This record gives sequence, C-alpha cells and structure tokens, in this order.
Amino acid sequence: MTTSQLTQQIRQKKSFLCIGLDVDLNKIPKHLLETEDPIFEFNKAIIDATHDLAVCYKPNTAFYEAYGLKGWQSLEKTIHYLNENHPEIFTIADAKRGDIGNTSTMYAKAFLEDLNFDSVTVAPYMGKDSVEPFLQFENKHAIMLALTSNEGAFDFQTLEAHGKELYKQVLEISKTWKNSERLMYVVGATKAEYFTEIRKIVPDSFLLVPGVGAQGGSLSEVCKYGMNDHVGLLINSSRGIIYASAENDFAEKAREEAMRIQEEMSAILLNH
Amino acid sequence: MTTSQLTQQIRQKKSFLCIGLDVDLNKIPKHLLETEDPIFEFNKAIIDATHDLAVCYKPNTAFYEAYGLKGWQSLEKTIHYLNENHPEIFTIADAKRGDIGNTSTMYAKAFLEDLNFDSVTVAPYMGKDSVEPFLQFENKHAIMLALTSNEGAFDFQTLEAHGKELYKQVLEISKTWKNSERLMYVVGATKAEYFTEIRKIVPDSFLLVPGVGAQGGSLSEVCKYGMNDHVGLLINSSRGIIYASAENDFAEKAREEAMRIQEEMSAILLNH
Repeated sequence: MTTSQLTQQIRQKKSFLCIGLDVDLNKIPKHLLETEDPIFEFNKAIIDATHDLAVCYKPNTAFYEAYGLKGWQSLEKTIHYLNENHPEIFTIADAKRGDIGNTSTMYAKAFLEDLNFDSVTVAPYMGKDSVEPFLQFENKHAIMLALTSNEGAFDFQTLEAHGKELYKQVLEISKTWKNSERLMYVVGATKAEYFTEIRKIVPDSFLLVPGVGAQGGSLSEVCKYGMNDHVGLLINSSRGIIYASAENDFAEKAREEAMRIQEEMSAILLNH
Repeated sequence: MTTSQLTQQIRQKKSFLCIGLDVDLNKIPKHLLETEDPIFEFNKAIIDATHDLAVCYKPNTAFYEAYGLKGWQSLEKTIHYLNENHPEIFTIADAKRGDIGNTSTMYAKAFLEDLNFDSVTVAPYMGKDSVEPFLQFENKHAIMLALTSNEGAFDFQTLEAHGKELYKQVLEISKTWKNSERLMYVVGATKAEYFTEIRKIVPDSFLLVPGVGAQGGSLSEVCKYGMNDHVGLLINSSRGIIYASAENDFAEKAREEAMRIQEEMSAILLNH
C-alpha cells in the first residue's frame, strides 16, 4: 500500500486508528477457548466488529510465537483474513526485528513477501545494513523504532550523542539510507512536545504512535504537534479496545471503544 | 545451564566454538530437499558430526520464520533434538528480540520456557524494561547486543554519548538491571582491541563473538584481549562450517572445518 492510499483511507473513514491484536489466551472470553483456533476466532470477531472504524491492524508477533506452531498458524490465518476480506486495511507485523543483512533479508521476506504484511516494525541498533533489506519492497514499509513509549526509552534513546539525543540521530541518519522514503517511525505518545522536534527532522513520514490512553498520552496533544498535511499519524490502541470486555459481548464493546476513539479522531480531522 | 557448567564443558571439549544453524534451503545439499523436513535433517546431520567439537549451537530464528509454519516446526525439532540428545550443549535462540515489558515477557516465555533454549539474544534499544523479562529464569541467559560485527555497527553503537560510545553505555547501564548476572553480550570480532575496553566494564561476563573468519576477525587476537579466567568467550561460526560443502559430504566437511577451529582453540586454551 502506498502512503497516499493510506491517507485516502484515513480521510474516508475519518480515522487514523490502528488496533493492536495482542491476543493473550488468559484474557479472551472463555467460550472461545473451545474453538479450534481461539486466537484467530478472537481476531476475526474484533476485525469484523471494527474494520470500518480502523485503518490498520497490528498483530504483535510475540503473542503468536508464545503459542509456538499453533500461534504461528493463527498469525497466518489472521493476515490472510485481513488481506482477503479487507484489502484496504494497512497491516503491520509488529516484530521489532533487525539483524545483519542476510538475516534481515530473511525476516523481510517472511513478513513482507510470504505473509504479505504491508509493513514490519524494525529496531535501529544494528544500523543501515540491518534495516535496508526491509526497504526493498515496492509499496511496503519498515516502521523503525525512534522514541518508544516505555520507561526504558529513557535509558538509551534520549542519551545525548554529539549534542543531540540518540533518537534524533536515528531519525536523521536513517533518512540517508536507500529507499528511506519507505520508512515510517515508532514515536511514543508519552511526551507530546517531542513531536515538534521530530517533525522538524521527518516532516513527511508516517509515525506509528503507541501509548495513547492506557499509557497516558493525550490524543489531541499528539495530533496538535505531530499531524502533517497528509495526517501522517497512526495511533495504536491494543488492550483498551480488544479487552474492553472479557464476556460474550467483547466484540460489541471493542466496537464501542473503537468508535469512541474514531469520533474523537473525526473531530480532530475536521479542524485540521 | 550455569556459566560454570558452560566453562566446565569448554575445558572438557577444549573448545569454545558456537555453531550457527542458519539454514538456507538454497544452500543445502539437494538430496535433503526430498526428505520431509530438510532443515531439521540438515541440522541433525551437522549436530551429529560436530557435537564433540562445539559447546554451543545457535539457530537464527529468521531462517526458520522465513519458511513459515514448516520452519517453526523445524526449529522446534532442532531444539528438542539438542535438549534430548546433548543436554550438555549450551543453546542460543538468536532472535534479537526486545519490546515493552509484557511483550518481552511473551518472547522470553516462548524461547526460554516453551522451546527451552538456554539463552536468547536481545536488542538493547528499548532499555531496561524490555530486557529484564528475559532475566527472570534461573540458569537461563539473555545475550544482549553491545557491539555487533556488521558495517551498520558504526551508525549508532559507536556514537559518543556523554563522552563514551553508546555500546559502552549499554554495557554499563545494563549492569544495574535486575538479575544482570544472567546477561551475556554480543561483541563482534572486527576490532579485537575493543575487547580491552569492554573487559574493563564486564570482566566476568560471557561474550558471544560473531565475525571471526568469514567477516575477517582473528581468533587469536580476540582471545588475547577478550578471554578471562573462566574463558568467557563463545566464538560463533555459521556459514564457514555448515556450508563447507554443498555435496553429500557436507557433514564430514563441516566436521573438518569445526575441528580446524577447535584445534586452534585447544592450543589457545593450553597457553591461557
């Protein structure tokens, strides 16, 4: 998917919501555990109930790998279901991969070609040759960690390196890489003012923003400082939506929560 | 496995060789492609031919994920084969994972508990709460990227942050984390002199060293600067050993190459 197709979808749905499919078998409604593939059934129900309110779904691969072979199968079924039934949706394999060149090439092939995700999240620590293999696919994207939303973000990402925080160096240096126009970035919502500085470095890139809601970030603040003229933001919510209820009405409640956020987004887009 | 058990094995086998099981179906002998699980059959043959010369095997998860469900199954069979037949061997899931706390917990469970690897490689970029979940398991280890052996290592890892290269900050700060005695570190062999500085920060830790041989690092130089009194080094070789031949004699040739390295190691240990 191109970024202009993504923006088009955002304008159409009046939403830039990304729903994180981080499925934990201990948290989903009990009756699903009797089905053959509880994770997929859960995802399918969530997608069916919310696909007109969200522009993006993001399964976190950890939650699938934790269930071994069966988990991997659920991941495959989920992405196939999305690609077949909702080809307009932007999909993210939240995998945070990154390794030496030949290895990153294998990961890129696995997620962007074989599973056919639109994008995959990557870690920057190993530098250029660990990320460029993810940027070789036309209309596909690598979403690189810049400033994350967790406490540990302040261990290294905000260290000053040559008079500039590391995450800013990461943003700047990555712009020199081959096919860097296919990069997007993870930027946590915990400190909305950071977006002003970040937009100076990457004015045009899409930013995937975790940490709104549960982790304390404010949607309107993030939009105020982070939105650009083609929107340029994907706001992720995982647990707040998918675990809005653990009862039989989980999909309905997920829809209510997604709609609450979508309405807020719609108002913001109207004024933008 | 404890680090003293690992050192004991090293002394016994006169080897600190780690063999990387990075299996590419395009590179293995053609006759294996007719078997039901070519990746596992290849690994089994390599392990059978080299287990008395190596103390450690390291499957890189990318090479398994690239083959989807079947690849994941091959990974499971490989680690089960190692744990059942060679419980003295130290095993590394080379996965380079790292995510927010609850997600890292899922990865840690997947690799250290369910698959029962002795260790897993992790990336430091997201800081303390992304790594500590991997350190919760007794006699298990997280092997954190410090200074890698690829070209991109010089993009961020060697940036000066507060007067000290980032990889040194990573080493120092990680020592303050909970259960940090279960940490090991990835340190590439490309510049052996770096080991002197690194040993000042982490004198006792085991270091996993890629980049000897194919990537140009010298074994004797690395040992000169990096070895400590319980050896403290695991030297990895992947392609140099497992693809020593692409013919029917691949296992035999792998053994010859492993033995060549082991003999060099044996001589070094004798003089250490």
